[in-house]
Amino acid sequence: MRHHDLVVIGAGSGNAVIDDSFADLDVAIVEERWFGGTCLNAGCVPSKMLAHTAHVARTVREAGTFDVDAELRAVRWREARDRVFGRLDAERDRGRRGRMDEDWVTVYEGRARFTGPRTLRIDRAEGAVDVSAGQIVVAAGSRPLVPGPVAGAGLPYETSDTVMRIDAPPRRLAVLGGGYIAAELAEVFAAAGSSVVIVEKEERLLGPQDETVAERFTELVRSRYDLRLGREVTAVSGRPGELLLTLDDGSTIEADMLLVAVGRVPNSDRLHLEAAGIATHDDGRVLVDAHQRTTVEGVFALGDICSPVPLKHVANREAEVVAHNLRNPDHLIAADHDLVPAAVFTEPQIASVGATEQDCRDRGLDYRVGTAGYGDIAYGWAMEDTTGFCKVLAEPGTGRILGAHLMGAQASVLIQPLVLAATLGIDAVTLAKSPYWIHPALTEVVENALLDLGM
Amino acid sequence: MRHHDLVVIGAGSGNAVIDDSFADLDVAIVEERWFGGTCLNAGCVPSKMLAHTAHVARTVREAGTFDVDAELRAVRWREARDRVFGRLDAERDRGRRGRMDEDWVTVYEGRARFTGPRTLRIDRAEGAVDVSAGQIVVAAGSRPLVPGPVAGAGLPYETSDTVMRIDAPPRRLAVLGGGYIAAELAEVFAAAGSSVVIVEKEERLLGPQDETVAERFTELVRSRYDLRLGREVTAVSGRPGELLLTLDDGSTIEADMLLVAVGRVPNSDRLHLEAAGIATHDDGRVLVDAHQRTTVEGVFALGDICSPVPLKHVANREAEVVAHNLRNPDHLIAADHDLVPAAVFTEPQIASVGATEQDCRDRGLDYRVGTAGYGDIAYGWAMEDTTGFCKVLAEPGTGRILGAHLMGAQASVLIQPLVLAATLGIDAVTLAKSPYWIHPALTEVVENALLDLGM
Repeated sequence: MRHHDLVVIGAGSGNAVIDDSFADLDVAIVEERWFGGTCLNAGCVPSKMLAHTAHVARTVREAGTFDVDAELRAVRWREARDRVFGRLDAERDRGRRGRMDEDWVTVYEGRARFTGPRTLRIDRAEGAVDVSAGQIVVAAGSRPLVPGPVAGAGLPYETSDTVMRIDAPPRRLAVLGGGYIAAELAEVFAAAGSSVVIVEKEERLLGPQDETVAERFTELVRSRYDLRLGREVTAVSGRPGELLLTLDDGSTIEADMLLVAVGRVPNSDRLHLEAAGIATHDDGRVLVDAHQRTTVEGVFALGDICSPVPLKHVANREAEVVAHNLRNPDHLIAADHDLVPAAVFTEPQIASVGATEQDCRDRGLDYRVGTAGYGDIAYGWAMEDTTGFCKVLAEPGTGRILGAHLMGAQASVLIQPLVLAATLGIDAVTLAKSPYWIHPALTEVVENALLDLGM
Repeated sequence: MRHHDLVVIGAGSGNAVIDDSFADLDVAIVEERWFGGTCLNAGCVPSKMLAHTAHVARTVREAGTFDVDAELRAVRWREARDRVFGRLDAERDRGRRGRMDEDWVTVYEGRARFTGPRTLRIDRAEGAVDVSAGQIVVAAGSRPLVPGPVAGAGLPYETSDTVMRIDAPPRRLAVLGGGYIAAELAEVFAAAGSSVVIVEKEERLLGPQDETVAERFTELVRSRYDLRLGREVTAVSGRPGELLLTLDDGSTIEADMLLVAVGRVPNSDRLHLEAAGIATHDDGRVLVDAHQRTTVEGVFALGDICSPVPLKHVANREAEVVAHNLRNPDHLIAADHDLVPAAVFTEPQIASVGATEQDCRDRGLDYRVGTAGYGDIAYGWAMEDTTGFCKVLAEPGTGRILGAHLMGAQASVLIQPLVLAATLGIDAVTLAKSPYWIHPALTEVVENALLDLGM
């Protein structure tokens, strides 16, 4: 059995663990699908590239608002897709080639499963191989969850893994799910010309967002999509390209294509973790301590397979933590999961950090709300924005920022001073009044929300 | 002679001094032109509204980059202008009406000049009036500087005061000056269809910016405009609508319209300051101490007429300081002018805070440079951006942020975390590593520039 000092399972965020400081070791990396992982190949990056393309298309379509006389002739989907994946596939190949070329790294292309605490069998096209390792990092990610009625129907469906690479946007797209992946991809395909219907079991899209954001976003897209809220799909019938979805109230939807975006599940069930004795949460996530250590000595985990916050910037941070802890067993560090910002790249964008208002209420916190609208600042006038807003939640007395939520243009950028302040404990008054805020930049909406706290 | 407890000269930022806490006083405000001042009527706000309109037009024109097939038919200038000034003139009228309706505020519409330390004569359409005041705030702003050869030619020219309100964009626009006002308005009129030539006496546009920004911006717009750098206009001839500009190298420019944007001068020369004994700097700015007090007791000044940093967010801060100091002579506060951020709303945007690299060199500072390109982050890929960048200057050892400079989309928003860090003394490593930075948001370019410092 071949022995490695370190084996990393998963060349997404797992690949970030390995840098030249490990070059004195015998390192292996196992990847069954694509270097760069979900983020580069089927997640954050291509979705943002297509989302920006959709943004350009929407800007053209709505140019008349600005007295710009423009015609949107078409979104050339296939060219856009090839532009996006031409770049990303090359990145993926470069990443793979880089590892192949390093003489201290062995690349196994196949699926790994545990055969013991620190032994693995890797099934490859060219045959299985057994390896043992001094240390193992589990970074095998997650995959789209496919609900029973869809999986059992025997009819074609797409997920975020596949839908961005299709040849042409469907005339009628049915989207299952109302979370951020569903919302981003709905916008992409609507911009590309698809007529979109969204089926979501909750009464609002983007349910986990702050209630004001979820409410206003749902209202905003009501005219854009056919929303079937509070509904679930009970059956999928018809034939490829002519699907019929039946909902739990007996109503039906005709669609050319079905996109399933109801959530993701960790890939832990594919790893034979029981053979190693690695424990998991009930939801399938690998159990780790604050230092990313699993229940088996010498085995770490990071990213979607274990993280309470399955986002790439968290996985990157966890990868740094694992890289450090692998080399410094006596000086372990931890990743913080408390104040993780997140953005949804819809139109308009959404961004958040910390507690939502419903969180504050549920926890019985004493809190104050400050809000400001894009429509009340000069740059919002420039953008003719009437819906965007910033909402800040702060602790009375101390001014500690408990949470912040934005819906509107550039929200993913506007949130950052709030992230910084919340993380470093800069109170709302200091944040509002100490630095200058450029007039008339969009940042004034954040300044005004802070001032609206009245502290 | 009518006596007021407080007279404010200038209803731009001066108007912000007066709030309800002064309602127990007899207050007067003098305005000779427009409530809301330059910013609202002829400055930051309309220029940003038109700049965003230009941004939309450019997005349409360049939509093909994103495989969006679009046609830009026209920018409907007159409609855009009426949309912008329809809103802003209403704001101005609302501001004026609000003051007129307050029984503790007297509004004088006319031009004030000093007749003594705290006495004024105000020339109005309905006749002159003399007033005395317990305290006076001088906030009479600035106006465009018009060089001799233009002023003396007897031919029509535009300035930022007038050009945004014209009926139609000229076919050929000559812009005198290469600073931020010139650069913003050049982009506005280029987007509206004008062919633009810029005459600038320095070898680069945006000279006061960090040298990398000025250099790259100049290169970037070289294909967009006819740049005549290192040149000055020596004569203007021809006739209205068919102007001929002669430059100092003997070359000539034909233009339908001339826009003068070579700088601004404080309006102090119109106030008979000598009658009050109010001192000025050599450049005409009213001399104030850290508490915005002029050399005459009871007379304060704020904004463009005195400020070392003639920007609206500084004037607003100075207005807060003056409002406080008027009421608290024993607890004076001061406005900070050290770390004032600024943005230029060109395409691409530019933003900066603190020292430029040439400042650091000139002051003999020990400094380190960190840079990152939009083209190296995922959202930059989404935007197909190949020119944008972030540059951070920091003190070795401490990591103190000395300055930061961005050129690229949303620069005016991206700068804010850097402003906050520089202002509060958050070092570069803490700023980079303590908060999460959303992946893949545009903010990663700031994170990467900080990491590139190698601290």
